[in-house]
Amino acid sequence: MTLYWASGSPFSWRVLLALAHKRVPYDSQLLHFDKQEHQSPQMLKMNPRGRVPVLKDNDYVVFESVAILYYLDRKYPQIPIFGLTPEESGVIMRVICEFQAYAEPSLRKIVEAVFSDQVSDDIEELTDAMHIVGREARTIEGRLSKEQWIVGANYTALDMVIFPWIQLLRRAMNRPSAVQLGARFLPMERNYPALARWISRIESLPGYQQTYPPHWR
Amino acid sequence: MTLYWASGSPFSWRVLLALAHKRVPYDSQLLHFDKQEHQSPQMLKMNPRGRVPVLKDNDYVVFESVAILYYLDRKYPQIPIFGLTPEESGVIMRVICEFQAYAEPSLRKIVEAVFSDQVSDDIEELTDAMHIVGREARTIEGRLSKEQWIVGANYTALDMVIFPWIQLLRRAMNRPSAVQLGARFLPMERNYPALARWISRIESLPGYQQTYPPHWR
Repeated sequence: MTLYWASGSPFSWRVLLALAHKRVPYDSQLLHFDKQEHQSPQMLKMNPRGRVPVLKDNDYVVFESVAILYYLDRKYPQIPIFGLTPEESGVIMRVICEFQAYAEPSLRKIVEAVFSDQVSDDIEELTDAMHIVGREARTIEGRLSKEQWIVGANYTALDMVIFPWIQLLRRAMNRPSAVQLGARFLPMERNYPALARWISRIESLPGYQQTYPPHWR
Repeated sequence: MTLYWASGSPFSWRVLLALAHKRVPYDSQLLHFDKQEHQSPQMLKMNPRGRVPVLKDNDYVVFESVAILYYLDRKYPQIPIFGLTPEESGVIMRVICEFQAYAEPSLRKIVEAVFSDQVSDDIEELTDAMHIVGREARTIEGRLSKEQWIVGANYTALDMVIFPWIQLLRRAMNRPSAVQLGARFLPMERNYPALARWISRIESLPGYQQTYPPHWR
């Protein structure tokens, strides 16, 4: 099994977390966005959209991070990540769908603006986006103040879907240009204490260190 | 089991198709958007976002259409809709994710503009959106020219996710104001013959008639 991924891509990070948790051995192929390696003929043959992550398992290829998580769960069901009961599975998928529909567009806007140094150009729009993110984060904070993981008693695909975006947002908010934008978000220990504890919990999982974006070190 | 839904909501239609296919009996609660019934205190208690569909199964509540499909599949696995093998499951989920990420935003834009009579205001943006939709539709056309269903030999959650949007788009493109916009889409029999045959195939499934939006008749 070969995973093609990129450092700092939250979508890639999800799959790295799942592979570590399920203890599936794999060949790691780190691609460099700046060298356009994700757009090489070999990659476009596997995913015509030229996006990562892409998982290749012998002759089988799957992409789109949530689909890769689902494939891994169907192929290696011993350590389940999509819930133990129909009810739990429904909530996990529901919160994944909600996160994609209601949080991701704003997160994407904020992170792209910060890392391309365009915060001051769109400050109003970005402030609105931070309000949306804040509202979604408070809902998750509420869940995590009652449980160790976002849904149920176990670390699931949902935690893996959300965690990389929180880390990426935290990194963006630490940029000097984002100080004002992030004033209600950082420090997380004060504004989102349950989320902060959940981050530490994931950071101490076995195999976590190998999933950390190499260019962030 | 009670389904709260609205006529013409593509998200609701997905669940109606799944319930019909899995032959699960349910109590049907048709809500009226124009009376704001989806925003009633009872509905907001189940889904604070005030959206439909919502499925209530005794004390358990699930919403977000793909999550409801997944819940139904976990609860009633006898007629599977998320694939028979890990490989098939991966492709089904992959194409669902691709549809949501790359087709749905444009579809939503087009349909909203047509039904609110604002086609001429944004004709350039809508033409771009139609190009995107056309490109995604051609990929699906390619799949359907080789198989009866979008992935594999069976009618799956993926067909249920995409079908209501195609019907809604077809309905929008039949509006006089959308004639020019839809010139490369309609008639589907000529432009997308495999998609047109797939639509007829779904329309002839048992139980289909009960899923058809009542206000479209």
